[in-house]
Amino acid sequence: MYRPEIKIMDCTIRDGGLMNNWEFDRQLVRDLYAGLVEAGVDYVELGYRADKSEFDPKNHGPWRFCDEADLRDVAFEAPGTKISIMCDVGRTDYDAFLPKADSIVSMIRVATYAKDVDKAIHLGNHVKAMGYEVSVNIMAASHVIEPDLDEALRQLADTNFEVVYLVDSFGYFYSEQIHYLAEKYLNILKPSGKEVGIHCHNNQQLAFANTVEGIIKGINYLDGSIYGMGRAAGNCTTELLLGFLKNPKYNLSPALDLVEKYFMDLHKELRWGYEMPYMVTGILNKHPRTGLAHMDAMMAGKDVPSFSDFYESHLGEG
Amino acid sequence: MYRPEIKIMDCTIRDGGLMNNWEFDRQLVRDLYAGLVEAGVDYVELGYRADKSEFDPKNHGPWRFCDEADLRDVAFEAPGTKISIMCDVGRTDYDAFLPKADSIVSMIRVATYAKDVDKAIHLGNHVKAMGYEVSVNIMAASHVIEPDLDEALRQLADTNFEVVYLVDSFGYFYSEQIHYLAEKYLNILKPSGKEVGIHCHNNQQLAFANTVEGIIKGINYLDGSIYGMGRAAGNCTTELLLGFLKNPKYNLSPALDLVEKYFMDLHKELRWGYEMPYMVTGILNKHPRTGLAHMDAMMAGKDVPSFSDFYESHLGEG
Repeated sequence: MYRPEIKIMDCTIRDGGLMNNWEFDRQLVRDLYAGLVEAGVDYVELGYRADKSEFDPKNHGPWRFCDEADLRDVAFEAPGTKISIMCDVGRTDYDAFLPKADSIVSMIRVATYAKDVDKAIHLGNHVKAMGYEVSVNIMAASHVIEPDLDEALRQLADTNFEVVYLVDSFGYFYSEQIHYLAEKYLNILKPSGKEVGIHCHNNQQLAFANTVEGIIKGINYLDGSIYGMGRAAGNCTTELLLGFLKNPKYNLSPALDLVEKYFMDLHKELRWGYEMPYMVTGILNKHPRTGLAHMDAMMAGKDVPSFSDFYESHLGEG
Repeated sequence: MYRPEIKIMDCTIRDGGLMNNWEFDRQLVRDLYAGLVEAGVDYVELGYRADKSEFDPKNHGPWRFCDEADLRDVAFEAPGTKISIMCDVGRTDYDAFLPKADSIVSMIRVATYAKDVDKAIHLGNHVKAMGYEVSVNIMAASHVIEPDLDEALRQLADTNFEVVYLVDSFGYFYSEQIHYLAEKYLNILKPSGKEVGIHCHNNQQLAFANTVEGIIKGINYLDGSIYGMGRAAGNCTTELLLGFLKNPKYNLSPALDLVEKYFMDLHKELRWGYEMPYMVTGILNKHPRTGLAHMDAMMAGKDVPSFSDFYESHLGEG
């Protein structure tokens, strides 16, 4: 029997925006939202709400900021689908949130490093008091030492937030590590009624596989993106989740239409996914920034080191 | 501690040849072989030995047949690397094998459906008597009913062959099914001293993940191909295996060089991998032939149904 508690969270625009500076064609975002509603996707994350005093709106697409008017221009209220936006700890204007009753947004996801969990809880409490559902996403779990992670999870267990995410930012983990961490998150968070989510990157072609391992362990919030669009190697694909999950409310066809209409071309242009520089940073448990720089230079036709030189230059580096 | 019994079997030319009729540039095959030797890959499968009375050599590249002279033209004896070729049951000329002492080939892999296992054993005995190592690869494990599979495995346990392969021809399985089948294969075959191998397809981006699950269960022969080149969605990538395995004899750099020099361009031309028609046949546990036809027509610029129509036309089909 399928698990009705399982939710798909599509973060195509939010995570994918890291590849195109959130400069999506507006009709694409409308079609994406409508298609995901038709597919039965539970949450659609339409971008970040970045601080405009830190990021100039002239230099970024609208989904870097997710003004209420922009959200309402592309999305609509739908019974089975909620809207989410993400905030980075330390880059968020506390005054940029309407009360939930006046907003089309249902969930705020706070992205944080483990060391900043106090700040994340502070921001989470702020938006929780305004009526939003709150998730805290602890990024870069593969770079956190265990006592710090345990302490962050215990602090989050004491909040009234809904969800805490296990995030493999660097695409480093395989199944045994996912099992270990999923059990840890669930053991600490489930007793206080929280759900656990999982957000994987695809550097080693393991994002979908690791998400399935999360499901097997009891994780219920699953991040995906259409055609895997996301930073560097990208994410678990939403269409694979729709194909895998047995809840009859899910429908694969609208996701296939989105891939066909928009995302194959975008992929050709932007080249997230299984590229050797991203594979290398993944297997070495490193931030993808050097891989992104390598790919950018390569796609601009500049002289770049060979993939094997790129790999060897990363060995033994701190 | 790493498991020294683990062997990587690269089948780029054999399985990849299904995408280009084995018409590889000869220098590519030479460079591939030399690179895989340098990478520490244990077996390199250079193609099929198809029956020339059934397949006209004028209509296929040389790696459809693997004549000894062609093999010696591209490969050389190397202490850590053996050469394999594959034969299909029912499409093999028994007289096409030299005695092992006169051949550069070490292993013959017999590809069979479970129902033809008697024929596979007959062919395996023939080449075993000539001095070769023998593997039997039971294709399409996701379409075999359990008593037939058990019986085939028991018959293979009674041979003097070295290896039996679990093959997910349609890219349908995820971890729980791999665990179940790996245990079954190992329980029946290990007591008679056989090794078990695993060959996965990547329709759901699970080929590497499932291969890792096979390792965890005790499977020691791992198929991969450079950049995943293989039929339809392709295979587990050899470079991911080289990056994952801890045996210090393995070296990722030569595989990265091969990807860069040859396989990115080949991929652009031939488009194996994560394409929606292959994803659809994978999740529905179907042979990829309709997906291949769809992709061929699409790439030839013909009018084809949408991906969602392709998907829906496969639902409920026998």
